[in-house]
Parts: sequence; C-alpha cells; structure tokens
Amino acid sequence: MTSLQDCRALDAVDPLRPLRDLFALPAGVIYLDGNSLGPLPRATAARVARAVQDEWGEGLIRSWNSAGWFELPARIGDRIAPWIGAAAGEVVATDTTSVNLYKVLSAALTLAAQDAPRRRVVVSERSNFPTDLYIAQALCRERGCELRLVEAEGIAAALDAGVAVLLLTHVNYRTGAMHAMADVTARAHAAGALAIWDLAHSAGAVPVDLHAADADFAIGCGYKYLNGGPGAPAFAWVHPRHADRFWQPLAGWWGHEAPFAFTPEYRPAPGIARYLCGTQPVLSMTALGCGLETLEASLPLGGMAALRRKSLALTDLFIALVEQRCAGAGLRLVTPRGHADRGSQVCLARDTGAYALVQALIARGVIGDYRAPDILRFGFTPLYLGFEDVWQAVEHLREVLATGEWQREEFNRQQAVT
Amino acid sequence: MTSLQDCRALDAVDPLRPLRDLFALPAGVIYLDGNSLGPLPRATAARVARAVQDEWGEGLIRSWNSAGWFELPARIGDRIAPWIGAAAGEVVATDTTSVNLYKVLSAALTLAAQDAPRRRVVVSERSNFPTDLYIAQALCRERGCELRLVEAEGIAAALDAGVAVLLLTHVNYRTGAMHAMADVTARAHAAGALAIWDLAHSAGAVPVDLHAADADFAIGCGYKYLNGGPGAPAFAWVHPRHADRFWQPLAGWWGHEAPFAFTPEYRPAPGIARYLCGTQPVLSMTALGCGLETLEASLPLGGMAALRRKSLALTDLFIALVEQRCAGAGLRLVTPRGHADRGSQVCLARDTGAYALVQALIARGVIGDYRAPDILRFGFTPLYLGFEDVWQAVEHLREVLATGEWQREEFNRQQAVT
Repeated sequence: MTSLQDCRALDAVDPLRPLRDLFALPAGVIYLDGNSLGPLPRATAARVARAVQDEWGEGLIRSWNSAGWFELPARIGDRIAPWIGAAAGEVVATDTTSVNLYKVLSAALTLAAQDAPRRRVVVSERSNFPTDLYIAQALCRERGCELRLVEAEGIAAALDAGVAVLLLTHVNYRTGAMHAMADVTARAHAAGALAIWDLAHSAGAVPVDLHAADADFAIGCGYKYLNGGPGAPAFAWVHPRHADRFWQPLAGWWGHEAPFAFTPEYRPAPGIARYLCGTQPVLSMTALGCGLETLEASLPLGGMAALRRKSLALTDLFIALVEQRCAGAGLRLVTPRGHADRGSQVCLARDTGAYALVQALIARGVIGDYRAPDILRFGFTPLYLGFEDVWQAVEHLREVLATGEWQREEFNRQQAVT
Repeated sequence: MTSLQDCRALDAVDPLRPLRDLFALPAGVIYLDGNSLGPLPRATAARVARAVQDEWGEGLIRSWNSAGWFELPARIGDRIAPWIGAAAGEVVATDTTSVNLYKVLSAALTLAAQDAPRRRVVVSERSNFPTDLYIAQALCRERGCELRLVEAEGIAAALDAGVAVLLLTHVNYRTGAMHAMADVTARAHAAGALAIWDLAHSAGAVPVDLHAADADFAIGCGYKYLNGGPGAPAFAWVHPRHADRFWQPLAGWWGHEAPFAFTPEYRPAPGIARYLCGTQPVLSMTALGCGLETLEASLPLGGMAALRRKSLALTDLFIALVEQRCAGAGLRLVTPRGHADRGSQVCLARDTGAYALVQALIARGVIGDYRAPDILRFGFTPLYLGFEDVWQAVEHLREVLATGEWQREEFNRQQAVT
C-alpha cells in the first residue's frame, strides 16, 4: 500500500520538480486536464503583453520583419520538431489540427491516386477523435473514396489492397491507448498504404519519433501538452520524400514561393512551407512559443525520457491508488496497463454518474474531464504534477464517492464540456 | 490652396476626433498602413492580459464555458455583421481569409454544379489579391474548372453562359479602386453566376451592404480596418438561401451540429455555424473583439456614414495636397478620383524609386507601404487620423522628394514588406 508519506518522499527526490514553478497554476487546483488545455506558463503573460504593446503597438506593420512575425510558423515548427522525431525545416506551426489534417489527407489521397489509382479507401479507428473522422468523411465524399472505420483490433485485417491511407491518432483521446507507431506504420506500408498520424495527445506527452517510424504525414495540437494556450495554432509535418510532390489545396499566399512578388500564379514554396496558407494569429502563436519553453526547460533534466519516466510513475500511482482506495465503487480502468500501450492519461469508466463525478471533483478543484457516455478522464503532465497531487486527487475521488456528494442535483445538470 | 491652418481648423471641428484616443499610437508616427495592419486599441492590452491570466490561467479548461470561449466565433461574427450589411447569426469569425475563401468557393462551385452543371468557369480580376487567385486556382485544379482572369473593364464581357462564380475583392488592394457591389452582383446574377465578395479592404472602411447587393458569399479580414491585431481571425458570410445547402469540405468538429456528442458521423450545424472547422485562437480572437469596439464607438457619432464622410475628406485632402505640393516629382495618382469608385486608401505610382520613397517615409515615421512594382500605398482610417496628419504626411513626402534622401543606399535595399 502506498501512503501519502510515500508520495511526498517521491516528490522530494523528483528531479523534474522545479519545472512546476514554470507554471501559474491557481491555488487549490489539481489540474488533470492538461491533455485538453495545458495550463498557463508563468512567462506567457509578459511575453504576450510584449507582443501586444511593443511589437504590435509600437512596431506596427514593421514587426512583420523586425519582430520576426513572418518566420513564426517555421521557427516554432523547428522547435516542435525534436519532440516528434522530425528534423528542422520539416514542421510548420499553423492553422488548426482539423485544417492541417485536410491538407495532409488531401496530399496522401492524391499521392496514392498517382501511385496506385485503384486504392480508394481510408482506414481509421471508429473511436478516433471525431474531427479527424469528419474531415476524412468530407474528403472521401469529395474524392469518391470510402472511409472504413474499424476497431483497433481490426486495423491489420482492414489493410487490404484497396487501402490508400491509414489515418490514426497515436494516443486515443477517450481511452489513452497508444498505438505502436513504428509497427503499425510498417504494417500500413507493407499493405501499400500511406500512414498519417495525429499527435494531438502525444506531442510533448510521450516519445514520438516520426522518422524512426518512417511515417508519411503527421499533424498535432498546440494547446494540449505543448501548453500553447486556448486554440493555439496546430502543426503539420510531411516526410521530405512527399513534401514537394503535391500542391495542397489550401494554396494560400503564405505557402507561395515568393509571397511578396504578388504574382497571379501560384507556385508552391519548396518543402513544408507549402503547407502554410493564410496569415497566422501572432498573439496566439507567441503564446505557443512560451508553451514550448516549458518543455525545453526539461532538456537539461533528461528531456522526454525523464518526462516519460515520471509520467508513467504518476499514472501507475494513480491506477494503484484508485484500485486501493476506491475499490468497490464501480470504477473500471479503461486505459491499458502496459507502459508501451498508453499515453499520459488514465481513463476510468463508471456505468452511472461519470459526468456528475467529474463535476463534483471540479467543484473540489480536481479538474479532469468527462467524455460521453461513461468516461472520467485524467491527464498527468509530469512538468507540473507531483506524486502528492496524485494522492490528493484520488483522496478527493474517494471522498466524492463515499459522501455521495456527486449525486447532488448541481453536478447532474449536463452541459457542454470540452 | 489648403494650408496647415485649414487642416487644423478641420480637426478642431471634427466630431470623430475623440475616437483617436481609443488607440495607442506611438509618438512621432503618422500611421497610413491601417489597411495592412490596424493599430493597437488602448483597451486591447488589458483585455488580452485578462484572457491570459484570468480566463486561461485561473479558469483553465472551465473557461470554454465560463468565459464564453465557445461562443466567440459566433458572437464576434454577430458584431461584424452590421458593418457588412449582414444579419445576426449569418457571420462567423474564424480561420484565415484564404481558408474561408476555400470554404465559400467550394460551396459556390458545388451549388453551381448542382444548379447549372455546364457552368465550369470562375471569373476574377487579374489584379485581385494573389491569395484569392491562388485558392481559386487550387480549387479549379481540383474540380476541373477554369479560372478566367480579366481586367476590371472586362468583367461584364467575361460573364458568359459558362461562368459559375464571379469572385472579386470589393476594394482593390493595390489601387484602392472599389467595385459597385450591387451593380456587379446584379450583372453576375443576370448572367446566371454566383457572386463572392472579398471584403478585406472594405469591412470597417466603407459602407458595405451584402443583403442590399443580394450577394451570395463574402469573406474578410480581421486585422486591417477591424483593428483585430496581427493575424486576427478572418470572417465568412453566406447568404441564408445557400447556408444550409452545402457541407463545406473543411468539415471539422466546430461545424458539427453537436460537437460534444462525439459521434463518428459528421452532421453539419444549421446555418453559418457549419463554416466553422477547428478550435479557434482565443487570444487573437479576444483582441479582435477589442478592435471591433473601436468601430462600435463611432456609432453614437454617426457610425459608418460619418466614418465614410471623413475618410473621403481625408483622401480628397491627401490627393489635393500631393498635387499642390509634390507637383513635378513624377508621382501619378493610381486610385480613382470618384467617391463611389474608391475605398479608404490612396495609391500613387512612380516609375522609379517607389520602394525607396516608402522606406524613407517610414524612417521619418510616416508609415505607408510599397506594392510591387511601382506603388506607394497610403491607407486613411478616420478613426485615428486627422487632417493635420494628412498635411504632415504630404509635407514629409515633399521633403523626401526635395532632399533626395530616398536615394540613400539604406532605403534602396529591398526586402520583404507586407
């Protein structure tokens, strides 16, 4: 049995502990929702204020050059690259995850149509994050392709000779289950399909190595584990072997070879820059840069290897404590136990009351989230969470269950939650 | 001849003069580039700081509901609506101008293909802003359509029985020439084509009435005359007669009928909400709200009618002073003289030295911009510019020309300018 003292002892020797001070976490909150919206880094407020007052207010239009606004998508892309196993010059920070998926899935379908015209199927997981499925559905409609949705166990069997693209999210948003990216990509390639990975729940959360996996395309989110702030720009990566082969359809001026030549003909920029489209939101992009600093601060302390080690320790502890202290309360572990099989979140299911339980925990300052119909979802970010936080979160969960307070009407009024 | 005293007298009786205090303009700057990037409103810094520190920092994920982040695209869209002659519920603030053009041009081409399948041509102006042409080119490539580029004078003749869509920017970015939106739309409709208007240089700058013109689709920019900050979200409007007819291809979860039901099937939201796609940059969106406040502050003072009156007075004055005081210096007026024929900017051309002249003016604090190959472009925003500003700007231009200082090497090193 693990005790509160054990947890405190773990915090006392945690080499990543100082990173917590990089965040402006509200008092009284245990934040287990960094997988939905990363918390505010302390440096962000001043940096955004500088972008507003100095760069915009004083610099005005001149800041496109003098403050480097033009280069932000590429520069921030270069800082995302090492966290996903990409090289400098291969990533752009831009637009939203959904828009970027449209670009790379368009590219993948067109390349497949050129190389293997009979392949007209996109395979994805039925429990993939819905926006990925919606974009795939829209593109399949346009292109006359089929979207084939299967369960995770059915992916290998679904990869037949008609498949053009396998589109998966690396870590499942609802369950926390993680695909073995290299193995699954190899299987897709062996079947003659291209592999697109959505890294929304893995960039900054788990080790990702796109080149080692030989992936074809990837996209991801700036506002979860990258701590870029609400609605921060997303990112896109295209393997260099594909990057110059396709004019993606969102062919706006930022993806032009010479945007300020103002020529009427589109000529795509070489490489990943052609995956840019329009002018990017500089204030939100600036905040994303500050979010990346919090990850970069882990580098002298071991970087992703150390973060992953602690993340697994935190999630192992959470699972153990829930099973010790909330036994018999009707909670089931949804997330796989195996370290290789999960991301940085733990999901519990309960036949009734999942929404109300999450609301009752939030009222106590333990912020996780609910995913319909029966999931309590908890994200564990080693940058700012400690072992005592895990203890206290489980203690609140135990009390909420024991007191029955979650059955109070206020917690049962369902409304939109993200 | 108009004198400096005359200009000061005009400022003294200008009822819009107090609006200038809504902006944090740097000392020593005469800002004639609000048509590229509107200046910083005074209220923005504190409002964005609140979004960073209170909404994100303290509210964390809860702010999607409690701070109204979810509703921002629709709420800000509703505030843009009256400036473009749209009704509440018809506009969304979202994504970029280029991405929004992709959505509405996809819609227009699909609706045209349904209603008149032989129509396969998109007509636009050769001098339209390039990103509009690039997006049209990409969509025409995808759809097997033809992009027909003509001069402004040739638009009527180009509208033959093969035309599906007429795509125009209301006010030309390079010349300031303005189309008669209602007449041109009527001509497109008479020819059986749909009309898409890009309002980048007209929303907030000139009276726009999409419903009176019976336009079909419109898009526009948040960071020019709406003063929303660098890369602020753009907007999209679709006439209600079309809004429910098409699933636009960027079919992300924010455009879903029930985003938080997390169903695998896409079902588009009714109306304009289906033109949303992914999660929006909240900090940049917040700044856009502050930008709109500066326009809204003009409402008790006469709103757009008063702004337009002053804009025309400022631009008339600029033209007259340039012709009086810089005569013989090789400058030609590019912008039409007729009030009905131009927006809120004045463009001059010079056979040589246009870039260097603009740089020399910027070095003196008179910020306009250069557009290749020979244009000096000056935007006049009645919210913060006065008649003496116009006098001083022309005086600087006269001195730069008279002293020959623009011929110094530093001003002749060409580089990217926006």
